[in-house]
Parts: sequence; structure tokens; C-alpha cells
Amino acid sequence: MAFLHNAWYVAAFSKEVTAGSPFSRTLLDRPVVLYRDEHGAVVALDDRCPHRFAPLSHGRVIDGALECPYHGLRFGATGNCVFNPHGDGKLPSAAAVRRYPTRERYGAVWIWPGKPELADRVPLRDFPFLDPDHYFTSEGYLLTQANYQLSADNLLDLSHFQYLHPNTLGSDAMARATLRHADDNDKVWVCRQTSAELLQPFVAQAFNVAPGKRADRGLDVRWEPPGLLTIIVRVRETDAPLEATRVGISAHWLTPETEASTHYFFAFGLPREMGEAGAALVQNSVEGLMAPFRDEDLPMLEAQQRAIGAREFWAMRPVMLSIDAGAIRARRIMERLIANESAAGDAGVSDVLQRVVVRADVEVGQ
Amino acid sequence: MAFLHNAWYVAAFSKEVTAGSPFSRTLLDRPVVLYRDEHGAVVALDDRCPHRFAPLSHGRVIDGALECPYHGLRFGATGNCVFNPHGDGKLPSAAAVRRYPTRERYGAVWIWPGKPELADRVPLRDFPFLDPDHYFTSEGYLLTQANYQLSADNLLDLSHFQYLHPNTLGSDAMARATLRHADDNDKVWVCRQTSAELLQPFVAQAFNVAPGKRADRGLDVRWEPPGLLTIIVRVRETDAPLEATRVGISAHWLTPETEASTHYFFAFGLPREMGEAGAALVQNSVEGLMAPFRDEDLPMLEAQQRAIGAREFWAMRPVMLSIDAGAIRARRIMERLIANESAAGDAGVSDVLQRVVVRADVEVGQ
Amino acid sequence: MAFLHNAWYVAAFSKEVTAGSPFSRTLLDRPVVLYRDEHGAVVALDDRCPHRFAPLSHGRVIDGALECPYHGLRFGATGNCVFNPHGDGKLPSAAAVRRYPTRERYGAVWIWPGKPELADRVPLRDFPFLDPDHYFTSEGYLLTQANYQLSADNLLDLSHFQYLHPNTLGSDAMARATLRHADDNDKVWVCRQTSAELLQPFVAQAFNVAPGKRADRGLDVRWEPPGLLTIIVRVRETDAPLEATRVGISAHWLTPETEASTHYFFAFGLPREMGEAGAALVQNSVEGLMAPFRDEDLPMLEAQQRAIGAREFWAMRPVMLSIDAGAIRARRIMERLIANESAAGDAGVSDVLQRVVVRADVEVGQ
Repeated sequence: MAFLHNAWYVAAFSKEVTAGSPFSRTLLDRPVVLYRDEHGAVVALDDRCPHRFAPLSHGRVIDGALECPYHGLRFGATGNCVFNPHGDGKLPSAAAVRRYPTRERYGAVWIWPGKPELADRVPLRDFPFLDPDHYFTSEGYLLTQANYQLSADNLLDLSHFQYLHPNTLGSDAMARATLRHADDNDKVWVCRQTSAELLQPFVAQAFNVAPGKRADRGLDVRWEPPGLLTIIVRVRETDAPLEATRVGISAHWLTPETEASTHYFFAFGLPREMGEAGAALVQNSVEGLMAPFRDEDLPMLEAQQRAIGAREFWAMRPVMLSIDAGAIRARRIMERLIANESAAGDAGVSDVLQRVVVRADVEVGQ
Repeated sequence: MAFLHNAWYVAAFSKEVTAGSPFSRTLLDRPVVLYRDEHGAVVALDDRCPHRFAPLSHGRVIDGALECPYHGLRFGATGNCVFNPHGDGKLPSAAAVRRYPTRERYGAVWIWPGKPELADRVPLRDFPFLDPDHYFTSEGYLLTQANYQLSADNLLDLSHFQYLHPNTLGSDAMARATLRHADDNDKVWVCRQTSAELLQPFVAQAFNVAPGKRADRGLDVRWEPPGLLTIIVRVRETDAPLEATRVGISAHWLTPETEASTHYFFAFGLPREMGEAGAALVQNSVEGLMAPFRDEDLPMLEAQQRAIGAREFWAMRPVMLSIDAGAIRARRIMERLIANESAAGDAGVSDVLQRVVVRADVEVGQ
Repeated sequence: MAFLHNAWYVAAFSKEVTAGSPFSRTLLDRPVVLYRDEHGAVVALDDRCPHRFAPLSHGRVIDGALECPYHGLRFGATGNCVFNPHGDGKLPSAAAVRRYPTRERYGAVWIWPGKPELADRVPLRDFPFLDPDHYFTSEGYLLTQANYQLSADNLLDLSHFQYLHPNTLGSDAMARATLRHADDNDKVWVCRQTSAELLQPFVAQAFNVAPGKRADRGLDVRWEPPGLLTIIVRVRETDAPLEATRVGISAHWLTPETEASTHYFFAFGLPREMGEAGAALVQNSVEGLMAPFRDEDLPMLEAQQRAIGAREFWAMRPVMLSIDAGAIRARRIMERLIANESAAGDAGVSDVLQRVVVRADVEVGQ
């Protein structure tokens, strides 16, 4: 299965990319090194020196360039070699690494693995509740040994709360909830509403529901390509007025590491006007959810991946249920986007490699 | 190499399959879940929900059906979905898992991985000495990272006692023993007789041979497809009358986990009329043999498998010795049975999968 | 990528092959067992019994022959079966394992994986400084998970001292050193000369340079097929007379374990006329170098191998620098030798296997 290349993916949380030492992460099957130049701007390059394939992430940042730890070539923000300590110091024309357009926003570093010249045409998706100027935020990360679309399926069908998270997020009311699906251009919405639900203590506390009181819960999930989800939770005691609804909102960003593994970034935001309570709650949210995500979702996703192995998802001929409508729409959108990109010859990655190959060939032959 | 599907295999010891929690084991390369219904009867199903491929063995048994741990579909003893908690609760026609005929006998659960409709025509093989009403029994299990036929070779040629188990089962008399082979329909017999043998203490004690006394030992091995062996050991002091012969008998059941790994079940039985002594001896047997099986046979079988890798046994062009006659006959019988099954289109497994696929396809297209 | 088979490789240090127990090592992708016969001579055989593929290295040496640990066949120095304990004791004609010509010299056991009849025509390469009669010697060994040619590249381009070993072997003067390359038949020389270098304490001490004093360092590397290197280091304080130069010399022998792993043997020699000081220095050398080799070179080589994966080196289209001239020449020589061997049908290994196959086939068919 191909990846969608012309899209913005989260490469890392901003705090992971420091000035001091380069940061390495495999994204869409390519080892990428992220570092900050002398102005603090993030640079993303292939984590592989074109000379002898040493990982550049083991090197040092010197004058805003990255020094290869094996023989000292240095590469700058454009990906070109800017310093060769050997011989006459000439910079070989083929000595360049692929550089990736990046953006930094919502506490995250975003990367564009496709054709660089297309990056500027496509804006980042909106996650305003993660703007640190106006919101308290908290962040979590899990590396999952499963395809990123399985994670999207998981988040687009929260009926699994009842079965996989019975003691934290779920309740018997989940499967009986009313369910609506909607598309909004390339966005998919799945909206679930329970009524008179007896919430588990973790959720009840977070949303200020008194012990033993029944509540109505709305769970709205929005998916955007290539795997960027927003979950809006609305809770109020069943007999409380509509204005008493408490809202929690979170982002769930899925970036393929490989076909069979996924970087799962999640983040919560609460308005700074909430003061101390908001700061504490946003932190509690990420801490409280880490356990069910890591101990219940992650093993399930990885079991699914083991069952699928190297096969395509559709080759497994999954049975379809009503709860799958959103996840299937999201999969179909991705399939269409990937097919379009492939038809347009826009995936870009192998092209670039091809061009380097030809030039290197000439040099080797000298 | 294909497996023989239309045959009874041991899936588990009876005690491994409890009422409380489902039991998972890979058999002939397929993950299978075993559980007991409300009447205590064993049910065997593919351990993979047809909805999103979750392992059913992680779920709960409810009203004799198995609940998927991810989204709560339930599957009954026929393999069909019997409950869908979502939407209108309709049971999708494609929502079914493969179910396997089972039998329970000789302290073991037997499974038929082939065409279900053929199961009733084929009786279980006989292991009367494991009938718990009349015999004390003991059991052992080892998972071996080697093809099951290598284990059959091992058991069909006990001359290796002398070299691989010199301090427990073997003696210098083994290679010099007289050797007879016989076929009895699809059974293979290998009968070995030593004379005036100085037994190792473990064997001498088990068969009541006085320390330092020489003994004659008969070792009769019977193999039946697909890998069910019986070993009858007859020992008497060389100068004792024939009636003084002591007999030990054991079953050795080989079930492929994969092409390169084997579930090795072994069991001993002694008549209940022996009383306390029999109960103790049958327990000593399995405990005493676990060490040589695990520490001497298993590493050898696994070393053989590593040497063979993904190749066919015959592609290795093994040199043939006189001691191999029985093992080779057993291999030839298996090859003929597998070829017949394949020619008759009776392997069944991929057929069934194919049919499910077609039906699912229609649903997905809706 | 093919190996060069008709060449002498180091299989082991002499001390690794004892009289007591057989020694197993995979060489050029073949498991080989080394043992000493009753006269102390080294025998090298395929570590795989032709009967049931048991590792002969798990067996015992009896009367100069190796006994299979599974069924007791014995194989002698010619590779032929010399004893069969079973049945009529006839020795099956196909019961033979491949034997490899060996030599023992310079503290090492050398093996010829190619056509045995060609071995005598090719002398060992010269490493006179490892003759134990006239030199103190010391030895080190590392198993590296990287192709052997990456290790040769590493040793043929010591400019990496500056970047990979800045605190032990390197200095800022390395990249600026003058560099000469030379070929001498199938030998490649790379000679590097620094001047007024501030040496790291480890090197300064070894070559008797006073603390703080600048020195001139010559580093001459000689490569011979298939991966036998000699490194000669010449150091003197910059203002000292030429006669004050101290010389250190070492051998670096690379033997492929597989395409992606290498046995790296290294050894140092100092003249016995140096007395105690020489004995101590030669020991210090191997101990002092083990750390940078294991902790700095080895991880880099393994990172390179991971980057290359199953691809050919040239398919990676490496950028060429002036420092690569020697390494590229060595690679080109190996490519030519391997191509010649292949064209002449002289690789030998698969041929021999083919012949055994045919004979075994006849026996099996009986």
C-alpha cells in the first residue's frame, strides 16, 4: 500500500527537536533527521549521508549545518553539502540530501514528505485549541506496531469504548448510542450521543458529573487526511440545562513510521481563562488516557496488524457493520487521494532519488 | 510443504481448555480459539473476528458464545454471529468464523482442520492406555521450533538414545540392537531389541532392574498419521523368565504449529490395578523424561530445522542409513496422503475462505 | 553479491581451535566446524552431518575423527564417513561432508573455501611481524553486523579518525593530511602524512611523544584481497631526527560471516628484542584499540549496513570524495576477481553440493 506523500504530517512535538542535538525519526519509511539551525528554525533532512550512508543524526550541528559523524561533510538547510574538509575542499555536486519542507505550529513540527514545490499551496489543518497563547495544552506519544489506518478506524468508531475500555472510558450505553455520519469536503464526521449514561469515575470526574448521577455524552470525531483527528466530548448531567455542558477537546495525529507502525501523537487543550483548574485538568487528561491507550488500544491494534500481516486490509474481506461507516469513508478518501497522487506522478520521493542516482553515476565513472 | 488437513490432531490437553477463559493456539498455521460452552463441550473456532480481525480468545464466553473483545460481536458453536450489539442488531450474513469439529478423549481435545463434513467418517486412533477410567496417566508438553516430521523421525529411530541421551535413556547396546520394521496398513512399526544391556539408573529403576544387572530391552514404536506415535518398552533382567518382563507405554502426539514448529504432547498410562506404585511411576516417567526431551532432543531438532531453513527435507538430499527405514516409510505415507487430499480438492481450508470472501465482497460493495 | 571463494581467509585465531572440543563458525555463509586431529593438525569440515543435518560441532573427536552427536557417524579429515555404528556398518558413499584446505600461521587458522585443488597454488599473504618466534603479538576479535567491504572501506580511509575517534586516535590534522595512493599488483596502498599534529594521549604515550609536544604521523595502510590489511604507523616529534621515528604495525583480517556480517580479526606485533617494554606495549595496543573499534567503528559500520539493507553498495550511488580512492580501488579489484572466478566456473561450492546431490538421489531411490 502506498502512502500519501503530498500532505502535512506531524514529525515530532516541538519540544522533541532541540537546539543541542539532532533528532532522528523514521517517517513514511524514510529515516529523517530534524534539527534547529542557529535561528531556532527546524530543518528536516534525510538521515543518511550520501557519501557512505552514515546517520547524520549522530553528528553535530555546526554553524546551522549538520556534520556527518563519519567523515565530516556538512549539510545545510537546503540539503546541499556546504563543507568538505578533505582534499581541495571542492563540494561534489551529487553531495546533497533530500530536505523536507517543515512548519512549526500547535506545539508540533509538521513535515511535507511529497514534492517540496507543492508544500506552500497546502495550508496546515486547524487545531486552534492547541494554540499555546490561548490554551493550556498537554501532549502524549505512543509508537504503535500497526498500520496508521487501523488507528484511524479505532478513533472513528468509539463504540469500542464499551468493550475495550469498560473500566475507564466506556459504559453499556455506548453501543446503544445514536450515531450520525457526515462528510464535509474531505473531512469525515462521526457523531455519537448517549443519554442517561452511568459514566466511569475517570470520565465523570473530568466532566464534573456528581457520583451516581446519570449524564448525556456527545462524542464527535472529525477525521482529516492523512490521519488528523479531533475529538470533541460534550457531557452534562441528564437533568441539567444545556448551558451546563462541559466540553473537552483533543487532537489525535497519526503519522506512518512504516506500513506496519505508527507514530501516534495526541494533545489536549483547555482555554487559559479557566486558570489553575484548566491547567490541572489538561494535564490529568493526558495522564489518565495514557493507560487505556497504551494498555488496551495499543495491544488490540498490534493484534490486528499481526492478523493482517503483509496483506492489504481489503484482502482480509472485513465484515461491515453500521459503526464502520465513518472509518470506511476515511479509508476511501485516502485511497482516492493516493491514487490521484500516483496518477499525477506527484509522489515525488522516488523521482528525486532517481535524479541523484544519475548524477552520482557520472561522478563514479570518472 | 502442505499439511494433511483431513485428519484428527491433538489441539490441547483437556485440562488446558477451561470453562472460564478461552484458550488460543496456532494449529497448522491457523490461530484457533478453544473454549467450553455452557454444557462443558469444547468449541473450536478461528481466533479472528471477521469484522476487524481481533483475537476472539481475548474475549469472554457469554451464554455459550464467544464475545469479540473489540466491538462485542458474539459467535456461537457453529461459528455464526449470534449477537450484534450495534445499530439495528442485524446479523451480517458474512459474519461467521470457521468452526472446527472436535472430539475429547484420552485426556486430550482433538481437532479436525479439514472439511468438516468428512470428520465423522474418520474415527480417532486408539490409545486405550490413556483411558482415565482404567489407567493412571501423566502428561507433558513441549513447543519445538522444528517441523513435526523431524520429531517423528526422532521417535521412529531410537538409536539416537545412545548418542543424544547417553546418561539417561541410552547405552552402548542401542546401535547394536536388532531392528525390524513392519507396515500395518497406514501404520509403521519399528521394533528394536537389545540384549544384556547395562541400563542407565533412570531406566533400570523404572523397570525394576537391580543395580549392576544386565537386561534385555525391547523398544517398539508405532507411528500413525498424521503424527501419532505409541512407544512400548519391554524390559527384563537378562536371566529372568519372560513373564518377569515389565512394560511401559506412552503416546507421543505431534501437531504442527507452523511448517517450522510443533506442538509435542506426550502422555503415559499405567493400569489402575497397580495402585499407588503405578500412580507414582506414571508421574515419575513424565518428570524424568522431560529433561532429556527438553534439553537434548529439542535443541537437536531445532538445530536440524535451522540447517534446513525454508527448504524441503528431500532437497537436503539426506544420506540414508538402515536405521531410517521406518521414518522414511512414515514420510512416504504422509506424502501420499497429502497428495491424495490435494488431488481430491479436499484440503478444504482455502476453499472455505474463498467462499466467505465472495459473500463479504457483495456486502462491502453495498 | 558473490564472495571470492578461491582465497585464503582467516577462520579463527589458533588458540580458538583446541584439541578438546570442536569449534563452530559460519564463514562465507557456510557453517564450518574446526577441530584438531590426534596430531594437533586443524581439520575444517562443513558443520552439518549429511545424514540428518545435525551440527557436527556438537559432537566429540574420537581417534582424529568427528562423531555426529545425533546418530554417531564419524567423519575424518578428508570429509568422508569413516565409521557407521548401525546395521552392517557399511559406509554409504554419499556420506561425506565438504572438507576445506587449511593452513596455520601468524597465530591464525586459514581456510580455503574455494576449489580444494587450487589451494596449493596460492601462498598465504605475508605478515612477518606476527611470527611468534621473533615477535610479541596480541590479538583481538569483533563480530560486526556489516558487510566486510564496509570494514575495508573504514580501514582504507583513516580520515575518519578525526570524526569518529576524536578522543583516542584522531586529531584535527587528519583531514588536512597529505594523501598518496598506490597500487602494487593486486595490493592497494593508502599513505597519509600529518605534520605538527597534537596527538591524543593514547597515541602520544604509545609512541613516546612527550605531553604537549607536536608530532608528525605517517599512516600507511596496505590492503590485499580478499580483505587482509596491514597498518603501519610512524610517529616522531616534529623536531626530532628521522631516526627517532617509532613504528607500530598491525594486521586487520576481514572474513565474511554472511553478506551482512564480518569476522574482524586484528593483531599487533613488536620485535622480541624490545624485551618487557615490547610485550607490554603490544598488549596495551590491543586493549586500547578495542574500545574505539567496538564502541565507535562497529556502531557506524552497523548503521551503514542497516541503511544499505539488502541492496548492492553501488545501487546506493555513493558520492565520491578524494579520500575514497583507495577503498574504491580495493572494491574494484574484488569485483574483478569475483567476476573472473565466476567466469571460470571456479567458485566451486555449489558444484560440489551438486555432485553430492546426484549421488544421494540414487541411494534414496533404491
